[in-house]
Amino acid sequence: MRKDTEREEPEHAAGNGILNRRVFLEQAVLTGAVAASTGATSAMAEPLAVPSWMKQPGAALSGYGQPSRFESKVVRAVPAPPNPATVGIGTARTPLQLLNGMITPNGLHFDRSHSGTPDIDPDQHRLLIHGLVKRPLTFTIEALSRYPMESRIAFLECAGNSGALNAPQAQPLNLPAIHGLLSCAEWTGVRLSTLLDEAGVEPAAKWVVAEGADSSAMSRSIPLAKCMDDALLCLYQNGERVRPSNGYPIRLLLPGFEGNMNVKWLRRLKLVDAPVMAKDETSKYTVLLKDGKAWQFVFPMEVKSIITQPSPGVPLKGEGFYEISGLAWSGNGRIRQVDVSADGGTSWAPAVLQEPVLPKALTRFRAAWQWTGSPAMVQSRATDETGMVQPTRAAFVAERGLRGVYHYNAIASWKIDEKGEAINAFA
Amino acid sequence: MRKDTEREEPEHAAGNGILNRRVFLEQAVLTGAVAASTGATSAMAEPLAVPSWMKQPGAALSGYGQPSRFESKVVRAVPAPPNPATVGIGTARTPLQLLNGMITPNGLHFDRSHSGTPDIDPDQHRLLIHGLVKRPLTFTIEALSRYPMESRIAFLECAGNSGALNAPQAQPLNLPAIHGLLSCAEWTGVRLSTLLDEAGVEPAAKWVVAEGADSSAMSRSIPLAKCMDDALLCLYQNGERVRPSNGYPIRLLLPGFEGNMNVKWLRRLKLVDAPVMAKDETSKYTVLLKDGKAWQFVFPMEVKSIITQPSPGVPLKGEGFYEISGLAWSGNGRIRQVDVSADGGTSWAPAVLQEPVLPKALTRFRAAWQWTGSPAMVQSRATDETGMVQPTRAAFVAERGLRGVYHYNAIASWKIDEKGEAINAFA
Repeated sequence: MRKDTEREEPEHAAGNGILNRRVFLEQAVLTGAVAASTGATSAMAEPLAVPSWMKQPGAALSGYGQPSRFESKVVRAVPAPPNPATVGIGTARTPLQLLNGMITPNGLHFDRSHSGTPDIDPDQHRLLIHGLVKRPLTFTIEALSRYPMESRIAFLECAGNSGALNAPQAQPLNLPAIHGLLSCAEWTGVRLSTLLDEAGVEPAAKWVVAEGADSSAMSRSIPLAKCMDDALLCLYQNGERVRPSNGYPIRLLLPGFEGNMNVKWLRRLKLVDAPVMAKDETSKYTVLLKDGKAWQFVFPMEVKSIITQPSPGVPLKGEGFYEISGLAWSGNGRIRQVDVSADGGTSWAPAVLQEPVLPKALTRFRAAWQWTGSPAMVQSRATDETGMVQPTRAAFVAERGLRGVYHYNAIASWKIDEKGEAINAFA
Repeated sequence: MRKDTEREEPEHAAGNGILNRRVFLEQAVLTGAVAASTGATSAMAEPLAVPSWMKQPGAALSGYGQPSRFESKVVRAVPAPPNPATVGIGTARTPLQLLNGMITPNGLHFDRSHSGTPDIDPDQHRLLIHGLVKRPLTFTIEALSRYPMESRIAFLECAGNSGALNAPQAQPLNLPAIHGLLSCAEWTGVRLSTLLDEAGVEPAAKWVVAEGADSSAMSRSIPLAKCMDDALLCLYQNGERVRPSNGYPIRLLLPGFEGNMNVKWLRRLKLVDAPVMAKDETSKYTVLLKDGKAWQFVFPMEVKSIITQPSPGVPLKGEGFYEISGLAWSGNGRIRQVDVSADGGTSWAPAVLQEPVLPKALTRFRAAWQWTGSPAMVQSRATDETGMVQPTRAAFVAERGLRGVYHYNAIASWKIDEKGEAINAFA
């Protein structure tokens, strides 16, 4: 047990108050830092008043639970549609600034829909595999449910996530408005390769066109190699059936690939010899460069990280100890390291990564910080197991220019002002 | 790619149709087995009709999503209360037979409540740490939120789960009625040891009494050693704030320990020199033996497994290939192995364990099975990393007798009849 006389100033690991990671490993080091900050200590701690909710029986048991009514602000941000007739088109953005851990609860998983959420009767839904195969196959949900299943925890990120940062000036946006097209869930389903083997892939087949059962029939061309690798036809999301806004009754999961390719409401897989140049791989989801040319078929989401606390709307409340917390991910595998800075990138210290660190999943990182009350610029920089490192914003813009919105993965910054408010800023 | 001529009979690994695990590793082996069974193949697969939901725009984006209306049967089983005035007392049981993966979505996490779910205002809620400490401390939720957080995926199991099997005759119960007091989530919160270090534990303190803020002030005595080890004060469950029925705004998590000790709506931790003999450690939650004596303070949940598919209400539909799927767990650490049998324990074969296999978390296991249409008795038998193995029911009853309901962990059996229906049975 710690004695009072052992209280010491925590060691500093980087500038502007970033503390050594041993703060997380040794209780004694931590204690003084937090106690002095939070105002939790009270010599008059007893007695505790009996609150009103202990004076009467509580609410009934329920079949399907919901969040507390006191958490009604924890909802997806749904920007107003430009046209009132298109209420199903657009985005519902995960409020990552109000969450912790790596799993996104199903009610808050982000949703990017191109023609609203269809109300699909699973008994009537069919999945067709056809094109360059020996045996075209049609599957009911019941038939699919007979196949061997596999589960994996995987992130999904819209290719346009964070694109708001690729602008000449930093806009006063909060975290969901910038980074909220990002979520992570445990997905369970059937390996697509199992079904393709059953259909018998013809040698000429090189691509697979996946089509959704929404009224836009949203379609993407996918390399056959990915379909034969780790692609899953998901029936379950965090244990229960996939949510309607995430593709009920079948969602294609292409771990690490841009969100749009993980086709929702999957109804058709056609094996072809070349990509079909669908709307969402020509007019959208291409990476526009500064010379006006564009990269097409950029599939894996690049290594990236964001700080979720502090962030706009989650201010600091007086100087002292804080945990800087955030998420890191890479479409190419596991996160190897996340560094944090509180001085705009002048100095860095490694954050603690929450185990288990899984490939192509979100990884929660945490760092200890002693805020002095002075302005600060907090940043995170992720490195994945392939050695890829997030670029600075300057390096990113120098290569890509400012015209694109997709696959933006530069280091992001929150400026902390003297009141403790976090503001979107360019370092 | 597989050629038709390569189709072979899958290898049998145990009696009555249990297939070799390489069925899961080699697509070619699997293909023939499933294709012949599911009726998925169709020479007339094309064209696919355009369903009604593709002919109009879909539903609007929403702030907090819900399951499909076609999944309204996927709810927790809430047995009718013996007294209409006590609608908050009892159990809401997870429908594990309708889920897959290892995570339980928050709406379906089991709930065992002793006086209903209190409607707690988090701004008014306080946590008091007092008793044998140098500095009694009171924490607001906001103060707790300043502390370093930790996440872990952990199972919770009511000590009374599966107790219905400790009866002279097998009753016609379904899975939730027998095993539904079991769930698994990613929990995030503050290490209890951090706060105890801050309060300063007196040498005389050996136990900690945890009290909930429901109207029964549900209380349990917990060894100090556990509190200083891996205990967490959880603010988040699967990313979002803990659900009211699971302890909002603070739940104590004691990984691996019986559910009742993971006190919900935590309001008070009192350090004491001996257990206080609370109602729920004397009149309940003791392990009654056949000689009328009882074991008290049996904390970790023993190694155990259940088959979730097939199970009562999830029947087989004709002979052929099926995946036997289930969950295994141990309060003492990781699952090392799960064996399955289709002949009532005469022969066994190892199941595939879904990675990541985490300590004190649910582990999904899967085995391939060729059902011949004859009666079968399916069983699973888990072994944990400490070497503990689930006992047979006969061995369990020989030691404990038939009077107890807590900590039942014997091998469970489903009898499959010729129609493919699964029935609770004693092997």
